[in-house]
Amino acid sequence: MARAFIHTLRVRYGECDPQGVVFNANYFAYFDVALTELWRDALGSYTDMIAEGVDMVVAEARARYLAPARFDDELAISIFVTHLGTTSMITQMTVTCGETPVVEGEMRHVFIDTVAGGKREMPAHIRRGLEPYASGQAGAWSTSA
Amino acid sequence: MARAFIHTLRVRYGECDPQGVVFNANYFAYFDVALTELWRDALGSYTDMIAEGVDMVVAEARARYLAPARFDDELAISIFVTHLGTTSMITQMTVTCGETPVVEGEMRHVFIDTVAGGKREMPAHIRRGLEPYASGQAGAWSTSA
Amino acid sequence: MARAFIHTLRVRYGECDPQGVVFNANYFAYFDVALTELWRDALGSYTDMIAEGVDMVVAEARARYLAPARFDDELAISIFVTHLGTTSMITQMTVTCGETPVVEGEMRHVFIDTVAGGKREMPAHIRRGLEPYASGQAGAWSTSA
Amino acid sequence: MARAFIHTLRVRYGECDPQGVVFNANYFAYFDVALTELWRDALGSYTDMIAEGVDMVVAEARARYLAPARFDDELAISIFVTHLGTTSMITQMTVTCGETPVVEGEMRHVFIDTVAGGKREMPAHIRRGLEPYASGQAGAWSTSA
Repeated sequence: MARAFIHTLRVRYGECDPQGVVFNANYFAYFDVALTELWRDALGSYTDMIAEGVDMVVAEARARYLAPARFDDELAISIFVTHLGTTSMITQMTVTCGETPVVEGEMRHVFIDTVAGGKREMPAHIRRGLEPYASGQAGAWSTSA
Repeated sequence: MARAFIHTLRVRYGECDPQGVVFNANYFAYFDVALTELWRDALGSYTDMIAEGVDMVVAEARARYLAPARFDDELAISIFVTHLGTTSMITQMTVTCGETPVVEGEMRHVFIDTVAGGKREMPAHIRRGLEPYASGQAGAWSTSA
Repeated sequence: MARAFIHTLRVRYGECDPQGVVFNANYFAYFDVALTELWRDALGSYTDMIAEGVDMVVAEARARYLAPARFDDELAISIFVTHLGTTSMITQMTVTCGETPVVEGEMRHVFIDTVAGGKREMPAHIRRGLEPYASGQAGAWSTSA
Repeated sequence: MARAFIHTLRVRYGECDPQGVVFNANYFAYFDVALTELWRDALGSYTDMIAEGVDMVVAEARARYLAPARFDDELAISIFVTHLGTTSMITQMTVTCGETPVVEGEMRHVFIDTVAGGKREMPAHIRRGLEPYASGQAGAWSTSA
């Protein structure tokens, strides 16, 4: 059983557009925030990994928008790790507002060596830290794994 | 033959992150800018459509990140309309910096009635305006159409 | 004695620039977030006021940058109301990271009538709600009141 | 006589908030864009200066909001250099939409040495490049010089 990780945040006024709803691009910023918090829960501060010369870059990102969210709404972002590859990782996010599904998202990250440059294997202690959040199966709409 | 529409923009300092590259979420804001400019080329100002009680919402968005772009880079964003449905539209974007492919993206928009609420058919004059940009085929990595 | 209101937030990765520090414009977004939370503490959700046909617009904003803040830093934003005018309000913000002062800011807001348009008097219940946070004196570098 | 430098840009949809106007913090991002373009006009790409180990940090920023700007408005941002100090520089910006003044702003930047750390004198060739844009007088509402 994968461990559920949920991060909650409030929609900021400046993140909403003239339609009165969260501007679509901002959900990808939310995904990044949620992943940082998953990292803290699993492994400690993300900046520790950077200090060791390891970082991640985003290789792919996507979102399906199911319902709008508005200023001051409190959103819950659930993340599952759906793939732990040799050099990459896939995560899936579900954003809800109360009982309402708002957005489903997915990101694929690749580990890089910040000193030598280029991609590198996921460090063993990172893999061990993330494994409890790994669901063992991709979500229904995934095609990237 | 589909008409090519290309919008160029310069990367702003505040759009780049501590890795020194454009933060991943900001490409989705770039896609939106490019679509606004395609609209101007095809149909005039996007705000005219809103004034008629018609608007679009984003139903799906995705991006593949191929190479980083940095502060002050001049990016060219090409857009093709790959699907003109009854109530929806799919566009594909290719972002390049000089000869280097930077990002490939795709968005699906749905037309809505801002007065009655809910989705509506794409207005006929919008369809006529967009048809010259329709490529007749989705890009190789599309699964949404 | 004015009541201290403090809102804490974590710096997001996408809010930092290639210098590795929070991009200057983003502090104004932080001020807005902190004001929303002051509102909640004093008066309930800001959206309730909007629902009554009252809103605020920003007339003036400024910031002095004292020290950089970085990704994942936890910032404390203190707000005082330094002026409750007939139609306007001045607030001062102090952003700290641990013991380090990071930014000092000030904003002047004007109340508007969203139905009739134009500025309007601050509603009496808003004034009563904000008075406990009013320090009775502007900060040392204020010239706007 | 100071040389006028004017940069024009279009308001992006995601830069506007639920009031339908440019979110206040985003004008500070516009100021930064305009300064980058003044740099190009005066000195070439801003990144060249960074490559020489010189950079600037923002010490102070402010804005007065005179009228709203909306999605797709074309804004003209005029910049004057109002102070060229030993280690710092003050610029004033005026944002207009057609004939309408929208925002007045001011920024104070300090030159830093990116290798040694800390502030440094403005390089002589930077000073020479900026002098033609120096108005010799601060704007009426300035108190920072």
